[in-house]
Amino acid sequence: MGNLLDSIRSPEDLRKLPEEKLPELAAELRAFIVESVSKTGGHLASSLGAVELAIAIHYVFDTPDDRLVWDVGHQAYAHKILTGRREAMKGLRQTGGISGFPRRSESPFDAFGTGHSSTSISAVLGMAVGSYLSGHRDRWHIAVIGDGALTGGMAVEALNDAGSWKDRIRLLVILNDNNYSISAPVGALSRNLTKLVSAPAFMGARERSKRLLSSVPHLWDLAKRMEKQAVNFFSPPSSLFSTFDLNYFGPVDGHDIGYLVRVLRNLKELRGPMVLHVVTKKGKGYPPAEADPTAYHGVGRFDPVHGIAKAPASGPSYSAVFGRWACDTARRDPRFYAITPAMREGSGLVEYASLYPERFRDVSIAEQHAVTYAAGLACEGMKPVVAIYSTFAQRAFDQIEHDVALQGLPVLFAVDRAGIVGPDGTTHHGFFDIPLFRTLPGVTIFTPSDENEARLALNTAYSLDSTTMVRYPRGKGPGVPVSAGFETIPVGKARTLREIQPGVPAGQRVIFLAFGSMAWRLQKAAEELGAGLVDMRFAKPLDEEAVLKVARSCDCLVTAEEGALEGGAGDGTLELLASHGLSPRVLQFGIPDRWVPHGATEDLMRLCGLDTDSVVRRVRERLALP
Amino acid sequence: MGNLLDSIRSPEDLRKLPEEKLPELAAELRAFIVESVSKTGGHLASSLGAVELAIAIHYVFDTPDDRLVWDVGHQAYAHKILTGRREAMKGLRQTGGISGFPRRSESPFDAFGTGHSSTSISAVLGMAVGSYLSGHRDRWHIAVIGDGALTGGMAVEALNDAGSWKDRIRLLVILNDNNYSISAPVGALSRNLTKLVSAPAFMGARERSKRLLSSVPHLWDLAKRMEKQAVNFFSPPSSLFSTFDLNYFGPVDGHDIGYLVRVLRNLKELRGPMVLHVVTKKGKGYPPAEADPTAYHGVGRFDPVHGIAKAPASGPSYSAVFGRWACDTARRDPRFYAITPAMREGSGLVEYASLYPERFRDVSIAEQHAVTYAAGLACEGMKPVVAIYSTFAQRAFDQIEHDVALQGLPVLFAVDRAGIVGPDGTTHHGFFDIPLFRTLPGVTIFTPSDENEARLALNTAYSLDSTTMVRYPRGKGPGVPVSAGFETIPVGKARTLREIQPGVPAGQRVIFLAFGSMAWRLQKAAEELGAGLVDMRFAKPLDEEAVLKVARSCDCLVTAEEGALEGGAGDGTLELLASHGLSPRVLQFGIPDRWVPHGATEDLMRLCGLDTDSVVRRVRERLALP
Repeated sequence: MGNLLDSIRSPEDLRKLPEEKLPELAAELRAFIVESVSKTGGHLASSLGAVELAIAIHYVFDTPDDRLVWDVGHQAYAHKILTGRREAMKGLRQTGGISGFPRRSESPFDAFGTGHSSTSISAVLGMAVGSYLSGHRDRWHIAVIGDGALTGGMAVEALNDAGSWKDRIRLLVILNDNNYSISAPVGALSRNLTKLVSAPAFMGARERSKRLLSSVPHLWDLAKRMEKQAVNFFSPPSSLFSTFDLNYFGPVDGHDIGYLVRVLRNLKELRGPMVLHVVTKKGKGYPPAEADPTAYHGVGRFDPVHGIAKAPASGPSYSAVFGRWACDTARRDPRFYAITPAMREGSGLVEYASLYPERFRDVSIAEQHAVTYAAGLACEGMKPVVAIYSTFAQRAFDQIEHDVALQGLPVLFAVDRAGIVGPDGTTHHGFFDIPLFRTLPGVTIFTPSDENEARLALNTAYSLDSTTMVRYPRGKGPGVPVSAGFETIPVGKARTLREIQPGVPAGQRVIFLAFGSMAWRLQKAAEELGAGLVDMRFAKPLDEEAVLKVARSCDCLVTAEEGALEGGAGDGTLELLASHGLSPRVLQFGIPDRWVPHGATEDLMRLCGLDTDSVVRRVRERLALP
Repeated sequence: MGNLLDSIRSPEDLRKLPEEKLPELAAELRAFIVESVSKTGGHLASSLGAVELAIAIHYVFDTPDDRLVWDVGHQAYAHKILTGRREAMKGLRQTGGISGFPRRSESPFDAFGTGHSSTSISAVLGMAVGSYLSGHRDRWHIAVIGDGALTGGMAVEALNDAGSWKDRIRLLVILNDNNYSISAPVGALSRNLTKLVSAPAFMGARERSKRLLSSVPHLWDLAKRMEKQAVNFFSPPSSLFSTFDLNYFGPVDGHDIGYLVRVLRNLKELRGPMVLHVVTKKGKGYPPAEADPTAYHGVGRFDPVHGIAKAPASGPSYSAVFGRWACDTARRDPRFYAITPAMREGSGLVEYASLYPERFRDVSIAEQHAVTYAAGLACEGMKPVVAIYSTFAQRAFDQIEHDVALQGLPVLFAVDRAGIVGPDGTTHHGFFDIPLFRTLPGVTIFTPSDENEARLALNTAYSLDSTTMVRYPRGKGPGVPVSAGFETIPVGKARTLREIQPGVPAGQRVIFLAFGSMAWRLQKAAEELGAGLVDMRFAKPLDEEAVLKVARSCDCLVTAEEGALEGGAGDGTLELLASHGLSPRVLQFGIPDRWVPHGATEDLMRLCGLDTDSVVRRVRERLALP
């Protein structure tokens, strides 16, 4: 294994291989990916599905001069390996290692950084127009986008724009259709694509297309011979793409590498914006991943022979606490309705979805629609709960503001992955939710500090007749037992976890006002400093009484949150103090004003100065203690 | 005039009219709208186009039990008048009067508040599912959406979801196709709709459809007779809607009220999600508006006989300053590229677009795509400038973060309508841009205080090789002469406008740190208080030196901005002080934490406590002065 792969340091090397060697290379690449990801964790299933695609594109096109953008970027490991990063795969997603996603700063072959979905068509269209204006009119601009990502509205906005450019640009959208986003496929578009692939009438066209594309070297000539219409010869009778004036080719088998290469060579002779519909299988070539692509979407380390193990029973993640709560609450309240934008598994809603299919909706990757759909449900007296990751809630800020909060509608946002997310890194950290949503009048933002607090927060948020958010981090908390009941907590009230230790001298009395996870993360720092510790429980409204009391009884008030410092809950505390004419000494901890990379969560906490040592040191400095 | 209209206090009255009276009512309604809007200003052209539609819907359907949502809401004046708000039209968009948009709090007939585009299909789908679950399975849910709004990605996300629901729900999307968004129509979708309306082959189908719909009372029976396919009988061979499994009917003439009523009566017998394609004319029935629907999109007061007057030559708006700057800069730099999401006129880009068509792109109502398209251009060495209103920039927060700022790409965002917008009100105020974008590392945010400062800010932002924003208010500033040159200013440096007046006693020394418009708005307050006044020029980075100096030389430091106080530039000032261990007395002015209605700008400034009297009073209170 690895003989061919050994010889390839860059796509230039790849292009020297004879075409008949490509299937062998694909097999080596696939084995390497399984082996490598089994040691680092990562996005396995998608990357296995795109092996032939990555080879064929780099084989046929002149990357990096031709621009290649991988939508989302889950599927780009073969691309990374072929473009000089085979060795670096050892450090994939690790502290200091390469990113799990394409990054402009990582390689000239990464034409555009991705991570969030549905951006690639806009990006390559911009590049194509830039190339046109700067005289690089033969350059190709290629977006590889999954059928899941195509349901994101901005992808369609871009398709609508792309059609106009006609032969001025060379733009190829490769629809990587694996009939799967992260969860199972949903929505009419998905059904429509499936129909395209499976319709008996169409299979004939596909065969015809196969013969033609194989035998005719220049499709363009063919097209001209057949008087223009021919370019759309293979186009299905009704498709999204013809609506947008894009030439459509396919579907073709994305694992038949010889055929893929021939098709791409033919398309390369053309101009204009076009779509190639490629059918692939998630997890291809690794049987456990083929059998359960959702489980193998993102994996931790695993034994490649036996596959991934079941999660050890060490206590539930926050997502699991949410999922349990959803089931419990739905059982007693027929108004409960859960919505996810393509994150049924990630959000912990698998059991709920099977128990309450009528009150569950996976809207696919469509955060904006998810939110306003929830608003509509709320108008009819339902109690919608939108399960959304912090970083993806950003995409629906306008809908949360304009359609939900402004109308005072009782929608509960369960904001998962709030704070440091670890290996997914920069594009996925959930740092901005507090600053964004704290600006909205009337919205209650809960920042539970542990698993049980999360349950209480969800109970309480759900009981309110207004817009609410409950934010909690990725993975597990400190591991406290979780109530199975429906107890609520007083809104806007903090709870004191620790008083200032008796005997701390004047001038050294410190109180921590902690939001969310920082309440348990700062326990040690508080002990070392003999400091008080308050779990604020809410980023909005703040507990005015508690803040004012604390401000008057300590020498240094410390705010701390696992989120952007700028505009965060610590700023809210400062506002509150200023509005009362108070100006105690305040020290703020939060995610500092720079981009935070991927890596182990504890490493990143340290990098952000949120670990015990850093906090204690800075407090001592501020108090001018030795 | 007005005899029929006089008799209609609600849709119930309307439904008592014999059908043959409806054209007369439409004429009265149209005359009333022209007369009324000529006195208040408002969105004239769209509302004139939807008169027959509003009558027909309320005539046929059982509003408010049947739910009716007007996308954007520009076109809803006839709806407002027919639903008991004829008298209230006097106060349209005025301080204390009714809103220019539908509002749930204003009327039970306003099923969903709108203002921003493309939300209606998501909202009615949520309502339809809510009605289904609560047993109201015969209730209708109707969205009226323009062809312009259909280009917004979230509308397509909703269409993709809607198709799945089949006969469980009753959902009617009325595509109000006036071949116009606010500017001229753009994009492939628009061309495609035009083709539908004009294709000779299709005209036959249309005639056929017309005959069928007129003669057959129950389309459903027909459909069953023709074995299902028939429901799509009138569907064009390739359309967006068939991709999404929606039944399509049309196109029909949206001004033929008798026919509209018959079509809606027939559709009312059906079930499932469906689309009715209605063709209307913006400005219909008022010749000046028909001739120039863009000019009559949003109007101030005017003489209905002579039409709107040209704007008086009293100095340029901020938008005009931006447009002039774009022309000037494009002339000397071939990398300059301007992008607007459907706001060519509003953003001041009419002249630019005609001078530099190759370097101008109206992407239609598609803020997300606009931003990432700009990112792609920047990757190829272009210098893209995205002209966007503050309130619509919200819709692209994720793209600005993930695709532009994170990659450090040099895109300049010209953020117009930042602050109080006046008559458009709650949904359109630009309050959140500073809190949102201040969280992004490496982004420079300019807050120019007058027209010339705006020019200097644009010059400077454009000269930087990083992500920048220049935010400026709606309309005109204080009216200073504007440079025609390319002078720049030092980044992150404030300028002192006024020192503390000599002789102000200790304990009473005040310094205002003003962002944007507040620098001139606070001149008088500063004079009255003998206070210092600093034009901060930047919301990010803050001028650290200036802030620290001020903090040490006054008794009360006052921050002031025309934007949300929570998370705003004043908070940045507090952070800076805290990070230096300083805790002076600080008073913050900004938009308070509640929803601000529509009205005259100066009324709203007062409501928000940002007028001279309020500021002076609060500063005196804080200093405990009489």
